[in-house]
Amino acid sequence: MFTIKFLPHNKEIQAEDGITVIRAAMEAGVHVNASCGGEGVCGKCRVIIEDGAVEDGISSLLDDGDIEKGYRLACQAKVRSNLVVRIPVESVVDAGVLNQQSAPRRKAKIKQMDFNDLKEKGLFLPPVEKRYLELPEPTAQDHLPDVTRLVSFLKLNYGEERLQLTLPVIRKIPDILRKDNFRVTATLERPVREGSKTRIINIQAGDTSSQNYAIAMDIGTTTVYGQILDLVTGEVLSEYGDFNGQISYGEDVISRIMFAEKEGGMEILHDAVVHTINNVIEKIVKIAGIDPDEISTITLAGNTTMTQLMLQVNPRYIRRAPYVPAATIYPPIRAKDIGMNLGDHVVALVYPQISSYVGGDIVAGVMGSGIYRTEELTLYIDIGTNAEIVVGNKDWLACAACSAGPAFEGGGIKMGMRATKGAIEDFSIDPITLEPMNITIGNVRPKGICGSGLIIMVATMFEMGIINNLGKFNRDLKTPRIREIQNVWEYVLAWQHESQIDRDVVLTEIDIENLIRAKGAIFSGCQTLLEEVGLSIYDLDRIILAGGFGSYIDLEKAIVIGLLPEIDTDKVTFVGNGSLMGAKMSSLTNRIRRDVGQVTQMMTNFELSETHSFMDHYIAALFLPHTDMEHFPKLKKRLEARQKR
Amino acid sequence: MFTIKFLPHNKEIQAEDGITVIRAAMEAGVHVNASCGGEGVCGKCRVIIEDGAVEDGISSLLDDGDIEKGYRLACQAKVRSNLVVRIPVESVVDAGVLNQQSAPRRKAKIKQMDFNDLKEKGLFLPPVEKRYLELPEPTAQDHLPDVTRLVSFLKLNYGEERLQLTLPVIRKIPDILRKDNFRVTATLERPVREGSKTRIINIQAGDTSSQNYAIAMDIGTTTVYGQILDLVTGEVLSEYGDFNGQISYGEDVISRIMFAEKEGGMEILHDAVVHTINNVIEKIVKIAGIDPDEISTITLAGNTTMTQLMLQVNPRYIRRAPYVPAATIYPPIRAKDIGMNLGDHVVALVYPQISSYVGGDIVAGVMGSGIYRTEELTLYIDIGTNAEIVVGNKDWLACAACSAGPAFEGGGIKMGMRATKGAIEDFSIDPITLEPMNITIGNVRPKGICGSGLIIMVATMFEMGIINNLGKFNRDLKTPRIREIQNVWEYVLAWQHESQIDRDVVLTEIDIENLIRAKGAIFSGCQTLLEEVGLSIYDLDRIILAGGFGSYIDLEKAIVIGLLPEIDTDKVTFVGNGSLMGAKMSSLTNRIRRDVGQVTQMMTNFELSETHSFMDHYIAALFLPHTDMEHFPKLKKRLEARQKR
Repeated sequence: MFTIKFLPHNKEIQAEDGITVIRAAMEAGVHVNASCGGEGVCGKCRVIIEDGAVEDGISSLLDDGDIEKGYRLACQAKVRSNLVVRIPVESVVDAGVLNQQSAPRRKAKIKQMDFNDLKEKGLFLPPVEKRYLELPEPTAQDHLPDVTRLVSFLKLNYGEERLQLTLPVIRKIPDILRKDNFRVTATLERPVREGSKTRIINIQAGDTSSQNYAIAMDIGTTTVYGQILDLVTGEVLSEYGDFNGQISYGEDVISRIMFAEKEGGMEILHDAVVHTINNVIEKIVKIAGIDPDEISTITLAGNTTMTQLMLQVNPRYIRRAPYVPAATIYPPIRAKDIGMNLGDHVVALVYPQISSYVGGDIVAGVMGSGIYRTEELTLYIDIGTNAEIVVGNKDWLACAACSAGPAFEGGGIKMGMRATKGAIEDFSIDPITLEPMNITIGNVRPKGICGSGLIIMVATMFEMGIINNLGKFNRDLKTPRIREIQNVWEYVLAWQHESQIDRDVVLTEIDIENLIRAKGAIFSGCQTLLEEVGLSIYDLDRIILAGGFGSYIDLEKAIVIGLLPEIDTDKVTFVGNGSLMGAKMSSLTNRIRRDVGQVTQMMTNFELSETHSFMDHYIAALFLPHTDMEHFPKLKKRLEARQKR
Repeated sequence: MFTIKFLPHNKEIQAEDGITVIRAAMEAGVHVNASCGGEGVCGKCRVIIEDGAVEDGISSLLDDGDIEKGYRLACQAKVRSNLVVRIPVESVVDAGVLNQQSAPRRKAKIKQMDFNDLKEKGLFLPPVEKRYLELPEPTAQDHLPDVTRLVSFLKLNYGEERLQLTLPVIRKIPDILRKDNFRVTATLERPVREGSKTRIINIQAGDTSSQNYAIAMDIGTTTVYGQILDLVTGEVLSEYGDFNGQISYGEDVISRIMFAEKEGGMEILHDAVVHTINNVIEKIVKIAGIDPDEISTITLAGNTTMTQLMLQVNPRYIRRAPYVPAATIYPPIRAKDIGMNLGDHVVALVYPQISSYVGGDIVAGVMGSGIYRTEELTLYIDIGTNAEIVVGNKDWLACAACSAGPAFEGGGIKMGMRATKGAIEDFSIDPITLEPMNITIGNVRPKGICGSGLIIMVATMFEMGIINNLGKFNRDLKTPRIREIQNVWEYVLAWQHESQIDRDVVLTEIDIENLIRAKGAIFSGCQTLLEEVGLSIYDLDRIILAGGFGSYIDLEKAIVIGLLPEIDTDKVTFVGNGSLMGAKMSSLTNRIRRDVGQVTQMMTNFELSETHSFMDHYIAALFLPHTDMEHFPKLKKRLEARQKR
């Protein structure tokens, strides 16, 4: 780590070796004009390296004199030592203006439970274990039936009792026993419910007890992620994600359900997702370098529609009032019966659903994040097209889904896009010149705006007074970047020649409106849900963000636009793919498999559309950050201070 | 019923309307010469109807004068009133000789448990029940998931708790609920183990609760029998038997196992028996006139080899020392998974095995006959190629198998045959002329001898002194029927022209030797088994015979040859196909399904070949009836009385 000092701002941060100077500036909250996203073509991000050495940053856009003076392109120059970097400001600016610059980025800390936590907390009850036996061979005096011999010695050598077998295993036993002189390894599947029977699910010749693996899988509407877990060490051996093959039949769950209602549609969707699952399995098995026959169990989590499609349970009634899912809890299912390329003996556990719009992915997040086991009042939010919200602690849990719309995934945003290469993911604006600082994913010329970038833009512009609390641009600002085109006001993030597309990259007032609706739905969802249980957002001890999107959100900015309540950002953690995490934890320990039934039962689902106050809260939330500034006291103070100047 | 009096014997019996006079005579123990088995072609069975009227019996073999005098052919004349029938004896015989005639036939009484017994004894716990529900339709205020709705109202309306579902049923629920306005019938499978969960195995639109059926099936080496049972009324609606399709690959279990050891052999045998099972199912469904979808459960019983072949469990080690079966208890299996043409939801219960040669057919007999529930010390014998023996009561049970050889099924007997048309099934001999009285199955000319006929012949000839206790013919008797052909002595039962075959039908000393070996094996098996548990055959309270053969055995004759111990014949009962009976009882009540596990555990298997005394007992039993006549005190007295004359 190196220390980078930015002048004239006089801000210092610690930066990793090799990151670009422009990203270090962004982290420090220092604005540097940059239109081309970091590709090095606009030449605007000129900075002077006053002390220390950088790698690269010399460009034909700089003349020899400049280079001599220490000028470099901040988006190309890489940090290789402690540095003093001066940002050339176009006019003499006072400290006040500099201090209006953004606060440093505050992303949520990643916090996931792991295998050692489980062990330490006594929660490690492996769902599948292997037992190696050296059995005596049958003789005229000892002619126990083969199965009885196996079962007796499992009891004698390991104290195993209440064992149950399946026919496929019985079929294997006679020959497997005799393959390696009655030396065998039995795979034992532990009961989820205490007091139930342990099942012998496999039998192998010789000693294979060190090879015992599980798969955890998240079946998302867009992507399917899988992991191979080592059940002996608890390690994640491999992970791989792939697009859900159902995407070609519809972007979201509603369009999938509509497709499933067509003749043969459900079978097509089922086959598509199973094909994806099998692809992912093949990949993770290959990456981990294990024998696929040694996989003993699989846990899957997905939303209600994904779960029903995967299990070929007609999802038709999910999208029709009164929106009932087929089931909440599904029994253990032979993986092969739903088309998975796994051994005959592998049982699939599928995470239970709460309602049509709070599914197994959310339950998995609740289980994996452990919020059902703490005293702390926690708000768990998984943000995607739908935002699912869970609130509660070890004594009670309540949940709701709210349709946020696809703004965070780029939907309904003129130049919105998913968080892929070319999406503006970070942004700053010069308070005087109103010139932008665009940082794109992949450091290439901008193509569009992704969800996290959108939040940063709107929050930054709002705090600087460039847009007002209704999300409208200040019409008085003198810059060609703010303009009215066909009755819609917009801000030009990148001109056509600086972009990857054949037109200017812009942020419009309609985009801002859509973002406000999306964040308003989530905020009022949280508020309504808390009120329904007699609490308010001030009572929250913790917020957990889940979903791919959550890791990119700048927490301070999310508070500024009123997406998150104003809470100490240290109390916000990020769990990544909560669904995958829950599937993983369930694969590692029966304790969580056991608890999930109770959690499902204790979780109360609220239909926000039936809650009278939801619409009121929603309308009140259609402002930046909110009609009622009392919810955002720190922000209010900052804004007031700014206005006084 | 009419009274028939036979002269000059002065014996009276009650006979049913329509039976032939010759069969009435046989039942009365009255000899009438008859060579042609009852077909009416030998003309030897001339009797005089002195009083009363018969139907038919007039033949071209009788001249007009004879007919005038009242002569009729006894094998053609049918009883239609009370009769006085005179047997024309060829010489004046004294009462002493007449009294040497056989005692009346004494077959075992059929005794089977039935549905009413179960109900009376509080043993009726139906394994599958149907529940009809009229569910409220979901509304905006009541949007329970479909499965939750069903489960909640099963609890509310019927007190059903701890319910479990399978995926195929969950798949059906959403659409079935909406098919008839949320009026549905749920099929509930009760747990065999108390305290376990009830499974919802099917869901149907509307009220189908009156239609609920089970199948019971016996998988025999030779034949497969099936029954449809009405689970509401307990009635047997249909029954059908068919030859096991495996017969083409071997007559007995050993040859089947040898075939199974060939490449692909096990699959061929599995497919063959499943094909037979499906044929039988199709037939019994048709006869009963039921909807096959209403079949909820199936129970199957078979010997160890048949069970393993049906379940595709390699039977190789059954026929190899030390003769270990794969398993004793099999888990419940989805009927479809073993190839049965039954609904997806139908679970097959397979009767457990005790050892390689005491299989599920015998366990079924023990369960169905209820010997495990009484105080009485009972001997249960199932006689086929192998004889399986069980002895015990409610406190203990012991079992063994002994290889009797196929004599009782016609094997190893020169003119032996199965009990089908043309087999001599009953026999008597004139003590003076040594002329035979042959009664065949179907009343046709003789083709051969079946097991029950063989026992009667040997017993009758032994008691009359025609053969000695070694089974050798008395060389001094003057009759062309007893002769020596190629060093083997034999008795001609029917001359070529009276038979259906192109040669004389005979009983040879080798046949008798084989019968003695077979009965000796069974008797010494019973004796050894009893001794192993510290008892003797005198301690027996009851004998139960099972197997198709058992119903035809003349009990008195079986005692005379020493097949059965000398016991009051009233204490001998016959259960018919014990395997089918046990399968039926298990289909009707979970009580028996529950008990079977304990019974299997409490039954001690003895390997007779490892028991030192077995060979001694066997050698001692190779006499008629036995070396030690003290075992047969009544017979001893009768023989002594005869010798004194």
